Amino acid sequence: MMNQTVFDTSEVLVRKGIKHVVLSPGSRNAPLTISFARNPGIKTYNVVDERSAGFIALGIAQNLKEPVVLCCTSGTSLLNYAPAVAEAFYQEIPLIVMSADRPPEWIGQRDGQTIDQSGALSNFVKATVQLPSSPLHPDEQWEYIRKLNDGVNLSVSGKSGPVHMNIPFKEPFYPSADQELKFSENIKIIKPYRTPFDSSTDNELLSKWHLADRRLIIVGQNERNEALDNVLEKLSNKAVVVVDVISNVSTTDAVRHHDLFLAGIEQKLGESLKPDMVITIGKSVISKNLKLFLRKYQPEMQWHVSAHLDQADTFQTLTAAIESNPVSFLEALDDQSEKEQFNHQITSNYIQNWQIEDARTKRKLLKTLAILDWSEFTAFNFVLNQIPEGSDIHLANSMPVRFANFIQQIKPNCEVFCNRGTSGIDGTNGTAVGHVLSTDRPTYLLTGDLSFFYDRNAFFHSYPIDNLKIVVFNNFGGGIFRLINGPANLPELEQHFETRHQHTAKYTALEYGFDYHGVKDMKALDKAMAALNKDLKSPKLVEVFTDPATNSDVFKAVKTATK
Amino acid sequence: MMNQTVFDTSEVLVRKGIKHVVLSPGSRNAPLTISFARNPGIKTYNVVDERSAGFIALGIAQNLKEPVVLCCTSGTSLLNYAPAVAEAFYQEIPLIVMSADRPPEWIGQRDGQTIDQSGALSNFVKATVQLPSSPLHPDEQWEYIRKLNDGVNLSVSGKSGPVHMNIPFKEPFYPSADQELKFSENIKIIKPYRTPFDSSTDNELLSKWHLADRRLIIVGQNERNEALDNVLEKLSNKAVVVVDVISNVSTTDAVRHHDLFLAGIEQKLGESLKPDMVITIGKSVISKNLKLFLRKYQPEMQWHVSAHLDQADTFQTLTAAIESNPVSFLEALDDQSEKEQFNHQITSNYIQNWQIEDARTKRKLLKTLAILDWSEFTAFNFVLNQIPEGSDIHLANSMPVRFANFIQQIKPNCEVFCNRGTSGIDGTNGTAVGHVLSTDRPTYLLTGDLSFFYDRNAFFHSYPIDNLKIVVFNNFGGGIFRLINGPANLPELEQHFETRHQHTAKYTALEYGFDYHGVKDMKALDKAMAALNKDLKSPKLVEVFTDPATNSDVFKAVKTATK
Repeated sequence: MMNQTVFDTSEVLVRKGIKHVVLSPGSRNAPLTISFARNPGIKTYNVVDERSAGFIALGIAQNLKEPVVLCCTSGTSLLNYAPAVAEAFYQEIPLIVMSADRPPEWIGQRDGQTIDQSGALSNFVKATVQLPSSPLHPDEQWEYIRKLNDGVNLSVSGKSGPVHMNIPFKEPFYPSADQELKFSENIKIIKPYRTPFDSSTDNELLSKWHLADRRLIIVGQNERNEALDNVLEKLSNKAVVVVDVISNVSTTDAVRHHDLFLAGIEQKLGESLKPDMVITIGKSVISKNLKLFLRKYQPEMQWHVSAHLDQADTFQTLTAAIESNPVSFLEALDDQSEKEQFNHQITSNYIQNWQIEDARTKRKLLKTLAILDWSEFTAFNFVLNQIPEGSDIHLANSMPVRFANFIQQIKPNCEVFCNRGTSGIDGTNGTAVGHVLSTDRPTYLLTGDLSFFYDRNAFFHSYPIDNLKIVVFNNFGGGIFRLINGPANLPELEQHFETRHQHTAKYTALEYGFDYHGVKDMKALDKAMAALNKDLKSPKLVEVFTDPATNSDVFKAVKTATK
Repeated sequence: MMNQTVFDTSEVLVRKGIKHVVLSPGSRNAPLTISFARNPGIKTYNVVDERSAGFIALGIAQNLKEPVVLCCTSGTSLLNYAPAVAEAFYQEIPLIVMSADRPPEWIGQRDGQTIDQSGALSNFVKATVQLPSSPLHPDEQWEYIRKLNDGVNLSVSGKSGPVHMNIPFKEPFYPSADQELKFSENIKIIKPYRTPFDSSTDNELLSKWHLADRRLIIVGQNERNEALDNVLEKLSNKAVVVVDVISNVSTTDAVRHHDLFLAGIEQKLGESLKPDMVITIGKSVISKNLKLFLRKYQPEMQWHVSAHLDQADTFQTLTAAIESNPVSFLEALDDQSEKEQFNHQITSNYIQNWQIEDARTKRKLLKTLAILDWSEFTAFNFVLNQIPEGSDIHLANSMPVRFANFIQQIKPNCEVFCNRGTSGIDGTNGTAVGHVLSTDRPTYLLTGDLSFFYDRNAFFHSYPIDNLKIVVFNNFGGGIFRLINGPANLPELEQHFETRHQHTAKYTALEYGFDYHGVKDMKALDKAMAALNKDLKSPKLVEVFTDPATNSDVFKAVKTATK
């Protein structure tokens, strides 16, 4: 039996506008050959010598100014493309090199025609894309199709150029005699757009927007941007706006408590919140429950809008990668309201569905936090509330940023920072110090004990950091492992996950001359926060001691109460 | 004018046994073409198509079982070698790919035939060697010739295989009409040997050894090795043995104070210490003065002996890279004493010259250290002397290992460790902790303040390190910058080099529960060392506070006294 996803290869490419494929015959690339040969949208050229094939493809692409596919078998055949690929790289011509490969487990085992293909052209391609080997798992099938999309899009984004897709195949390469091969109807296509709304492709986007009734706009990590706030405000009766705390969006109508109310959501509510279309902006999204929700209740369209091509498919629903300034893009959508064809009643109801959930969750959360025991979460809530207007806030991974994302009550004129590029705990202190060295604004660093101890050499210098205000939430280990599913009930929890310790930040504070307050209850925390907020004349540190077991109980109580 | 070093290329290769060169014509590689064409030791083959040229060279090398050179011009010509090179890689056939290139400053500037060649074959070659561009500086000429040697040696060492030498050329490529080209007589050749003394090449080595009168054996970083100690002891009336403290050689007659007495050595003494031949063993050498001495007073031969090919040319005098077990090799030299033809009187005088200097320096050093003021050096000397037999000693970069190398009085059954692979200060604590976690022996970590603070998270865990004894020499900054020439007199010294601070290790000791003693004079240090040595029941830390200015004065006084 031939793998259906592999057979769909040519169909993906056809839908992405590929028309010409230069094939060099081989056995390992037979699945691709069959896919291309049986697709009426593809014109194939069979050229035995891959070096010549490379230059022939270059000639077609050069003339037509569109990507052309090169397809070869495994082994040195790929290397013969190198001269044409190098020429294409410097001449900025989009070539899609598709090399069949042995499965990765067979590389370097002295099997025939097996060389280290991945990266073999890396000096001369925009990217090497390694596709999964004859994928069976749905995630791998998603990866296979997505990477075909990514590769073609990348070849023509910014400076055009060659992209190398290396595709390992397991046997069998040929369909069985009785196998009826048909291209799938429902194939994921991620279409790239570059738009200042003046072309036909823009109209295509606009008409889709105007037809959608249930619209969701999600803002991931982003810097403060007043223009974005304004346009989101204007769009708030046309779309639900969902924002994480690191989006720095201050729009009043935005939904902020999704990470709580989307947890384990029931089918009926899920259906009522399911969008037709999603527009995403910004970088990473914290809320795991938002991700799970959208992966389950998939929209028909998801557009990611960014200044430069960004094809990350966080929700597995991406259909368009739009290169555009996000604010201009949203403004253009709003400006065209005379053309709107959506059902206002449906839209209005849809927005209300989200806002009811959000308001209910917020009310219950604040009420619950107010009455619960002393714990990390309650203390964090108190601290966040005490941070005055006009402050900058640095949040550490992993719990501080999550707590802040649950609570989200950030005062005006504050900006929130967090290292969510890689979500590491390794440089939180240093990043906050760098911030302080370049601003006079009061800067709050809210961090866990492990992040704090890990990076304490960030203070080992003599530059003034008097406007730095640190709150260390010390639960004597990696408390997150007690709060998330998986490790919480394992015998390895304390030693291998939490990495329990008995350290305090006191000695570090003493060594660096920080004003220090260690607190174990709300009354002491209240006093300590007053001292922390007092002035900008010296660095200050409040250490909040909590008990891991209580933290876990409180966390569960909040989760239950906000259901 | 054609560059003489470039013209010598073929001569180096001929002397290394290369006989066949497959050339593909071009302009950029003209200097190599001319060098090969004019060398009667080379048989050239001109093949226009580089892809065919690659396989033709493969065929010759495959048949003759010796390295064959491929030489092409810049641009995609190199890429056409890729199929043959990949085949050679997996078939383990030695090919020397010599690609002419544009000078590096022109890469990526849209100049003709300019692609990113370096690394273009990296998946399929044993190494990419980037040669310097038309070298004029003597160090670059050394690099050029040395890398030709390295590349050919590497192609046949261990598993044979292809090596890529990328050689950038500046114009002019052709000799001027009146330029008379002759190959240099005196060309550095590094010959590889693999030896258990049973072949003709071994006899070649042995006869050279038997003829040399002034022999020096240098041992770089090495683990404790009783067999090595024994053979060095046996050879000590036939050669001077020079050892750094990290060699862990305990031979009594070894010269140990070379880093002091070789400093700024006068011509006459230099001549009396100059060797005919040098045998090096082990990894890096600390003594900068030994390096400077040998680079100036160059031996005729230097053999580096290591179990696997090691071509590092620390002294710029390497003539043979010998793959052999160093102990077996030295024993074989010793066993053949009946064949010795050296002048015993000259050898004996030569050994005495070194030992007189060593003894004199040691006497003066110890006397001087005994009477000088409290300082890092005097304190270090005291500490080193207090470390009992049967201990392991971890030395930090940069001053602790240097002080130890000056003093060298290590008690029996001790082993000395130091991260001299990269000479970083970043992992000294961690390396000592790892050591302690895998031994019951008392383990002494002698470190400076910066190394100590840098890596203090090495203690952030709960594993017992009770046999760890730390001495932190705290001079409140990077004291080395005050002791070495260069930065000492710059206005940037304190802020940008020393990185002055006011930290103490006390808080770290408190936090981790180390037994702590801070000392500021010899009497307190004496007491603290007694406490440090007392038992293995808990980690202990002595912090030795000294004044940078006094340290500098004492250091200078020692240097003067040992002149």
